[in-house]
Amino acid sequence: MTEKIFYFDHAAATPVDERVQTAMKPYFSVDFFNPSSPYAPAVKVRRDYELAKSKLASTFGAKGDEVIITAGATESINLAFSSVNGHIVTSAMEHDAVLAAAKLHDHSIVRPTENGLVSTQSIQDAIRPETEIVSVQLANNEIGTVQPIRDIATIVETERTRRRNSGDKRPIYLHCDASQGFGQVDVNVARLGVDMLTLNSGKMYGPKQVGLLWAKPSVRLEAQIVGGGQERGLRSGTENVPGVIGFSLAAQIAHDHRKSEAERLTALRNTLQEMLTESVEDLVVTGHPKRRLPGSLHVSIPGLDGERLIFALEARGVLVATGSACAANKGTRSHVLSALNISDEVADGSLRITLGRLTDERSIQEGGKIIVEEILRERARVSHA
Amino acid sequence: MTEKIFYFDHAAATPVDERVQTAMKPYFSVDFFNPSSPYAPAVKVRRDYELAKSKLASTFGAKGDEVIITAGATESINLAFSSVNGHIVTSAMEHDAVLAAAKLHDHSIVRPTENGLVSTQSIQDAIRPETEIVSVQLANNEIGTVQPIRDIATIVETERTRRRNSGDKRPIYLHCDASQGFGQVDVNVARLGVDMLTLNSGKMYGPKQVGLLWAKPSVRLEAQIVGGGQERGLRSGTENVPGVIGFSLAAQIAHDHRKSEAERLTALRNTLQEMLTESVEDLVVTGHPKRRLPGSLHVSIPGLDGERLIFALEARGVLVATGSACAANKGTRSHVLSALNISDEVADGSLRITLGRLTDERSIQEGGKIIVEEILRERARVSHA
Repeated sequence: MTEKIFYFDHAAATPVDERVQTAMKPYFSVDFFNPSSPYAPAVKVRRDYELAKSKLASTFGAKGDEVIITAGATESINLAFSSVNGHIVTSAMEHDAVLAAAKLHDHSIVRPTENGLVSTQSIQDAIRPETEIVSVQLANNEIGTVQPIRDIATIVETERTRRRNSGDKRPIYLHCDASQGFGQVDVNVARLGVDMLTLNSGKMYGPKQVGLLWAKPSVRLEAQIVGGGQERGLRSGTENVPGVIGFSLAAQIAHDHRKSEAERLTALRNTLQEMLTESVEDLVVTGHPKRRLPGSLHVSIPGLDGERLIFALEARGVLVATGSACAANKGTRSHVLSALNISDEVADGSLRITLGRLTDERSIQEGGKIIVEEILRERARVSHA
Repeated sequence: MTEKIFYFDHAAATPVDERVQTAMKPYFSVDFFNPSSPYAPAVKVRRDYELAKSKLASTFGAKGDEVIITAGATESINLAFSSVNGHIVTSAMEHDAVLAAAKLHDHSIVRPTENGLVSTQSIQDAIRPETEIVSVQLANNEIGTVQPIRDIATIVETERTRRRNSGDKRPIYLHCDASQGFGQVDVNVARLGVDMLTLNSGKMYGPKQVGLLWAKPSVRLEAQIVGGGQERGLRSGTENVPGVIGFSLAAQIAHDHRKSEAERLTALRNTLQEMLTESVEDLVVTGHPKRRLPGSLHVSIPGLDGERLIFALEARGVLVATGSACAANKGTRSHVLSALNISDEVADGSLRITLGRLTDERSIQEGGKIIVEEILRERARVSHA
């Protein structure tokens, strides 16, 4: 392992911002009180917790008391889906958490276009009279395609109006897993037109195992974890005070710097993409050329073994992924690439490169050079084999 | 609020040990990698995580791969109970998390004796042919009574043998919520004879919102939160690496110092109990005189208002509770005291005093003096009213 590390896997994990750590610290050992205790120091902790929730909610245009804090995005998604009895419409691009939770219900899975877009037409076609949730991610965690949530919201709203006019009281909600993309693209519940939103602190330079489900007050959620009645009875357990303090500040920082960070990452990503496409013949760039997360670059080198490549890169200090960390761990092929009808040969030669705050011009130049060199070396090896 | 604080509410929350915070720190921003990522720095994080789980498990005589990490004790209990379809036997002394989760199933609730013991006879009487879980806490969070888990395990084992001999394949498990008491009494799954165990980091000087469910390999658990397949598929979501590193060290410290800490707390508690009983006429001490957590002292002053008293004490820097923090938050009377058939007059005059690492001889002398003074002052006020 080399000393210098070029971390190009921000979609898998982000380091906790130093300011966020500093903000969390007092809540571990000074303001450690149970926020449900009655005495003043605990009431102060309760106040700090609720204020942090409010500020957190305001970053995406919502109110603190509409937010349920969960242990990460996965629990948030499970909580959203446990609230319905009917049919779920989702896409084949979604994270495993959405797909696994949807599969516990009657469900339909729509296929994306070949650059990963979930079309409004496909959603419209999949909605049935008994559909209660449409769930589409804000941006894909592998190829970075940003979905047309606002347009999908219009489809859902049309169906809602149809039901209302025909006296049908069955609700239909649009849920959006925005775990990827916060701090890179605009996330505002009114502008997106969603009814439920999932966010993940661990992907925005906040602590891991902290997330949230936002739901419009009209959504009837059903508790999945019962007990002491915290989070308005919807999610029991002594509150993760430092976690929420950290999540809130992380979201505020990401929100405040979104535009400049998105510009910066887009420029860096485009530079890297050029370096790769110029030097590597037949390189395939996957995902939508325009509707793509600024920090996302998904490439395939047909005929190469992506896994071999990431270990060769790792030996030179460049950390990239082949697909999602969860899938890597299970040794399965990416369900996202399968959904795009990408051939096994292309899929197997994939690298997921995700930029973020640890990326700068120098790391793109130096890291990019290493990626090019290793691809060419590996290709030479394979062609001589 | 005075400068000097005497914290006598360790059952509600404990500060995170400085050593635990130090151990957690690198995993926020240096070793922040997703443990499911394939490259070496992430594999190191995975190894550290699994090692921490193993060490954590070894503190209660178990193996790391038998442990499912959860976001606290409440989720652990919900996960344990979600794995059964049959009847649940539990006691009226249990934490809200157990009672709320049990109420989602067919259940029987046994009454304790007046000093809070759950008798083996009552459990035996409540077990039905369709009972699948018997759940009894290790120690009560309000009055500190330590339950005869080992004896209850014998009852459960007898029923298991009866079923086996009659060809009945329905399982029956003993679950123990040991959230309170770890680090004060012996917690070892073999010696307790339990099949499932719940622990809570936040009550043992570790971080909040981290807990675990331990289950014997023979127990068939069913995932409550699905997705990426972490924790052997039983609890999905990117792992809380710093949380588990912290929980593990907290458990090791608590385990290593258990005997000396139990002796120390027993002596301090007995000193305080003497101070109170000698100075306050009619003072009622609730809970089992012998089978009681070393740090627990539950007293009632009939005719006084416990809530008024805790605010008077708070003004002088003494932080105590009337009951559990959850119940305090909901403004309800303690279900534990109701289960003991304690009259409302006595229950309303209750103080829960729980000692721990922030307690020393000086705080007992000074804090105890303040408690006595405020009780006497309040009593004088009431008798003159």
